[in-house]
Amino acid sequence: MKYCSECANPVELMVPAGDNRPRYVCTHCATVHYQNPKMVLGTIPVWERDGEVRVLLCRRAIEPRYGYWTLPAGFMENNETTADAAERETQEEAGANITLGPLFALLNVKHVHQVHMFYLATLRDLDFAPGEESLDVKMFTESEIPWDELAFPTIHTTLECFFADRARMLEGGSYGFHTQDITRPMRGDS
Amino acid sequence: MKYCSECANPVELMVPAGDNRPRYVCTHCATVHYQNPKMVLGTIPVWERDGEVRVLLCRRAIEPRYGYWTLPAGFMENNETTADAAERETQEEAGANITLGPLFALLNVKHVHQVHMFYLATLRDLDFAPGEESLDVKMFTESEIPWDELAFPTIHTTLECFFADRARMLEGGSYGFHTQDITRPMRGDS
Repeated sequence: MKYCSECANPVELMVPAGDNRPRYVCTHCATVHYQNPKMVLGTIPVWERDGEVRVLLCRRAIEPRYGYWTLPAGFMENNETTADAAERETQEEAGANITLGPLFALLNVKHVHQVHMFYLATLRDLDFAPGEESLDVKMFTESEIPWDELAFPTIHTTLECFFADRARMLEGGSYGFHTQDITRPMRGDS
Repeated sequence: MKYCSECANPVELMVPAGDNRPRYVCTHCATVHYQNPKMVLGTIPVWERDGEVRVLLCRRAIEPRYGYWTLPAGFMENNETTADAAERETQEEAGANITLGPLFALLNVKHVHQVHMFYLATLRDLDFAPGEESLDVKMFTESEIPWDELAFPTIHTTLECFFADRARMLEGGSYGFHTQDITRPMRGDS
């Protein structure tokens, strides 16, 4: 940020009176331009038949992490709820028809000022297809998950939690709600 | 937003190529200025002695809702996790020493582009005092809660869920994780 979005004069990075953090402050109209973390919303789209569980992943057609696999997810927009955003991203990136379940994971990625959240979801049919931001969309059993080709640490963690819960469900457990802080950067991560 | 924060030229509200929503786009350098929902983080600070449960509330010394009661909460900042933000706001607004518990509620307030989250917290001592943004800080039993003088619908909903869970805990239940969409505006709400 170099200029004030209200009056076009230069901004300066300074601690405003009564505050304790540096902010971009307009040298002319004194507007303080706050910057806050963003939410990334997605789903774990599940297809379950004959005791076999498959999860839908998308291969990214955009940077960062072009060519790597991800759960369908993206930035939450104004005028939508977290559930709206998760459903929209699943439709946009995977063309998938889902029934949304409960919120499954909330992951803090503070070094990039983001909070990632994933809802459980059930695929209603197999009529999915890659959207503009995906090269491919495919279903994977646990043993087929391309663990070394996942796009982001939050995808890795969410899938780990998901399959751990599934294992516990064989002994009568149920899905939990998982919160975790992601500190490890991934190969090629900024 | 009137001017581009990168080059100071005017912005126009338009749907960028390949997008499907109106954004502020710079007429000169073509930067797209995205606007996303913000997170508000807070706690439910609990003091429990001799079977009596009290919750700490702050009386707001700032607009909106000056003079109304709230759980300690505020906007999450860059470079912090949701838990960091909840703890910081509790310290800033109530001067309270807490041990943070699990995330208790996530509430979508889409008409103001916000997501509110509240963590359970245990007060470590009674050394609390109003911060700059509070007129008063006080503990309330369920029957003492000033239901008609609460600042925001999300505070109302979170306290309702909290005391409902407490009632269920008498029959062997435990705290749940609650997600809800807030659509009803409160008196005087914009």
